[in-house]
Amino acid sequence: MENKGITSREDDYSKWYNEIVLRAGLADYSPVKGCMVIKPYGFGIWERMKEQLDKMFKETGHVNAYFPLFIPKSFLSREADHVEGFAKECAVVTHHRLMNNPDGEGVVVDPSAKLEEELIVRPTSETIIWNTYRDWINSYRDLPLLINQWANVVRWEMRTRMFLRTAEFLWQEGHTAHATKNEAIDESRMILDLYAKFAEEWMAMPVIKGIKTANERFAGADETFTIEALMQDGKALQSGTSHFLGQNFAKAFDVTFLNENQKRDHVWATSWGVSTRLMGGLIMTHSDDQGLIIPPRLAPLQVVIVPVPKPNEVINTFVNGIMEELKARGIRVKYDMDKKKRPGFKYNQYELQGVPVRLAIGKRDLENNQVEIARRDTKEKYNQPTEGLTDHIEQLLVDIQNSLFERAKAYRDEHITPVDTFDEFKEVLESKSGFISAHWDGTTETELKIKELTKATIRCIPLDAPEEEGKCILTGQPSGKRVLFAKAY
Amino acid sequence: MENKGITSREDDYSKWYNEIVLRAGLADYSPVKGCMVIKPYGFGIWERMKEQLDKMFKETGHVNAYFPLFIPKSFLSREADHVEGFAKECAVVTHHRLMNNPDGEGVVVDPSAKLEEELIVRPTSETIIWNTYRDWINSYRDLPLLINQWANVVRWEMRTRMFLRTAEFLWQEGHTAHATKNEAIDESRMILDLYAKFAEEWMAMPVIKGIKTANERFAGADETFTIEALMQDGKALQSGTSHFLGQNFAKAFDVTFLNENQKRDHVWATSWGVSTRLMGGLIMTHSDDQGLIIPPRLAPLQVVIVPVPKPNEVINTFVNGIMEELKARGIRVKYDMDKKKRPGFKYNQYELQGVPVRLAIGKRDLENNQVEIARRDTKEKYNQPTEGLTDHIEQLLVDIQNSLFERAKAYRDEHITPVDTFDEFKEVLESKSGFISAHWDGTTETELKIKELTKATIRCIPLDAPEEEGKCILTGQPSGKRVLFAKAY
Repeated sequence: MENKGITSREDDYSKWYNEIVLRAGLADYSPVKGCMVIKPYGFGIWERMKEQLDKMFKETGHVNAYFPLFIPKSFLSREADHVEGFAKECAVVTHHRLMNNPDGEGVVVDPSAKLEEELIVRPTSETIIWNTYRDWINSYRDLPLLINQWANVVRWEMRTRMFLRTAEFLWQEGHTAHATKNEAIDESRMILDLYAKFAEEWMAMPVIKGIKTANERFAGADETFTIEALMQDGKALQSGTSHFLGQNFAKAFDVTFLNENQKRDHVWATSWGVSTRLMGGLIMTHSDDQGLIIPPRLAPLQVVIVPVPKPNEVINTFVNGIMEELKARGIRVKYDMDKKKRPGFKYNQYELQGVPVRLAIGKRDLENNQVEIARRDTKEKYNQPTEGLTDHIEQLLVDIQNSLFERAKAYRDEHITPVDTFDEFKEVLESKSGFISAHWDGTTETELKIKELTKATIRCIPLDAPEEEGKCILTGQPSGKRVLFAKAY
Repeated sequence: MENKGITSREDDYSKWYNEIVLRAGLADYSPVKGCMVIKPYGFGIWERMKEQLDKMFKETGHVNAYFPLFIPKSFLSREADHVEGFAKECAVVTHHRLMNNPDGEGVVVDPSAKLEEELIVRPTSETIIWNTYRDWINSYRDLPLLINQWANVVRWEMRTRMFLRTAEFLWQEGHTAHATKNEAIDESRMILDLYAKFAEEWMAMPVIKGIKTANERFAGADETFTIEALMQDGKALQSGTSHFLGQNFAKAFDVTFLNENQKRDHVWATSWGVSTRLMGGLIMTHSDDQGLIIPPRLAPLQVVIVPVPKPNEVINTFVNGIMEELKARGIRVKYDMDKKKRPGFKYNQYELQGVPVRLAIGKRDLENNQVEIARRDTKEKYNQPTEGLTDHIEQLLVDIQNSLFERAKAYRDEHITPVDTFDEFKEVLESKSGFISAHWDGTTETELKIKELTKATIRCIPLDAPEEEGKCILTGQPSGKRVLFAKAY
């Protein structure tokens, strides 16, 4: 738990990231290739994210349900694009029994327990859910159906990184059914706004809302909306997507309804999700070479109080009073009374773990009616009068939340660079990186060519991109607006 | 959503159960054998259970984490008893890729993507967790480790019943590590008390706390504690178990720690869990031939207000006032303004769904300063003055919660029958069923023989069973206390 020797971001961003995850106690490797263990401290942050998102989903009329982990293999090929995009790299269950090894120790698969049809561990649940919706939807009175599920999913990934890309991950997937195309589009846009609000107001992570190109679209969607964030190393992170699915899944699974005019029509659909990947975004948006930085609204522990040099009756009495007041305001606070560890050791530990505010309190401080406050985000330290201390801390947490957002936004805004030529494009990508705002001729061919040449992809066509006549940076063909390119996680 | 034609409990309890589950909208069948879909209304009840249990776990010092869904096959055979009890009927992942069918349509398993070692979808997580704890525990300072996980697990079941026995189910599994044997035993006993408190105070389901016989013990445990409930058909339901695991998993996975005297010792363990099976217990403890009955503390909707015969401005104004007052007290209430459905239709629907309190309000009622209240549990109806209505409803919800518990407890207590001979045992089992309190000689042989002859099993040795000299009902051998037999789910 010491922060000596954390690799600096400048030296090796990727190594720094892994060290933060491991040493702040967020997650651990597991013996299963590509799967991680989410440790209690990391899970505490995820729980807070989940709680807030769940509240926002419910406030907008959604309810939770639970669908099976397994999907019959044949379901995946029902929607043609979907199987191309998803069905290939997945965990396949072929047997349902083990038996004692007849030739020695341990257990082996019982060959007589082969499944008639293989089951796939869900990589996403559109197919099994739309197969179920067929029985649930009969008339316009059954619509809209606004269902969300919190679940684990598995996508067999070759190159994995903790939180950012793991074979198994946790997420929520919303699956809604609507009577009209417009209502479904509105839903997918509303969820996009909800995701952006969550990212900015809770994670303090600025995002750009946009539309994915056809090439980057979800397999089976007519339109994919995305929120894109920028990490400190200039790479983009797709942080949440919301899909307008048209009638594709309704047609594949034959889900129709009787509309108000007594005519049968296929149902319109959306799906949308965010995952434990957000944890990666949180880490890479705020943290520094001393360790994790967590925005106060998501911090499992917001304030830690350290007695200097160790607890005594005077300090304890004072702290107990403050603790009570802070808790009464809903502030998550801990008094670290461990006598075996020195204050300096504790400071390092809480810095590494990203606790937003640290109070250090010595007997002398109390005689002077003050305490020492340290902000994790700016590493500023100052003495604060004990009078009005609770008010001060409450406001400080708000300030830190805002300041983290403003800092990240300033960095992000500085790293959106408009370019007009391909040479400039390549140069900015290498020297400065970040988002590059450029004209593109609208073809998948050009998009793939640019990716091949530079590794940059089109992250999105921003929703607020103004109409502007221009020429594609690669082909010179006409373009009506700029899109955002970046190297991405 | 009509309750006409629900099979009565007397006619066919099992059919009645399935109809309640389906028609109250709790769950649905799925295309995957043995797996169910938990529908929003059923999931709403489960969410409330989960929320309360989670709170109780956290109040007793536990934290949540998340471990991988997959377990390497070889892990299962590390603990000898464990593999015998668990590893056999499970979902086995053998491949990680599908490919387009070279001989026709659809997709097939890619034979080149065979895993080196098969992965098992977790039937329970002791093995993968203790393999991880090895890296997390080094000294007594790392103990106790008090971790819980909310997760899905899979046990391949041949005969499944919704909620009670499904291939995939949702549960929580606590896995704790301790420095001493006594501390681990205390933990498993404390959790047993927590489960009993939850069952009785929240589910209004009386339970008997006891110890499992060696034969019914969890595979890998030194001692299994259980809470056993009695369903309306006289069959018992094992509702939660807490295991003292000794040093079995620590030895199997080589988890040791340096104790305060600087000596290395194996860690002591517990594990404990409750699952969506509790939903089955909830249904079968309280519901009747008109549908579901849900105790107020777990009801997603506690009070429904129906305008008679339909909404109008006078009624709406009154209802809005009441709604606001009820919501301010944290009461979950809905005003059903649907004009297309008649009051009688609505009454049936909410009865079927088990909403604890129904208010019917007509214009005439309001002129008389009263409303009609119907209790779901007793089906009692009465007029109540509008003055003090909120207070009345708040108290009524408490009364219903208590009354459901008392009713279930009276039934349960009437169905604990002491017998002293095997003839009596068989007769009570056939005629009255329920728990049978009888002497047993303490051997697995006798226990299995009784099961073979009668289908009854020893549900538990109650913790509070008094010492009493007696003779085993089957063998006549001496016995020191009575145990509880029953047919069980």
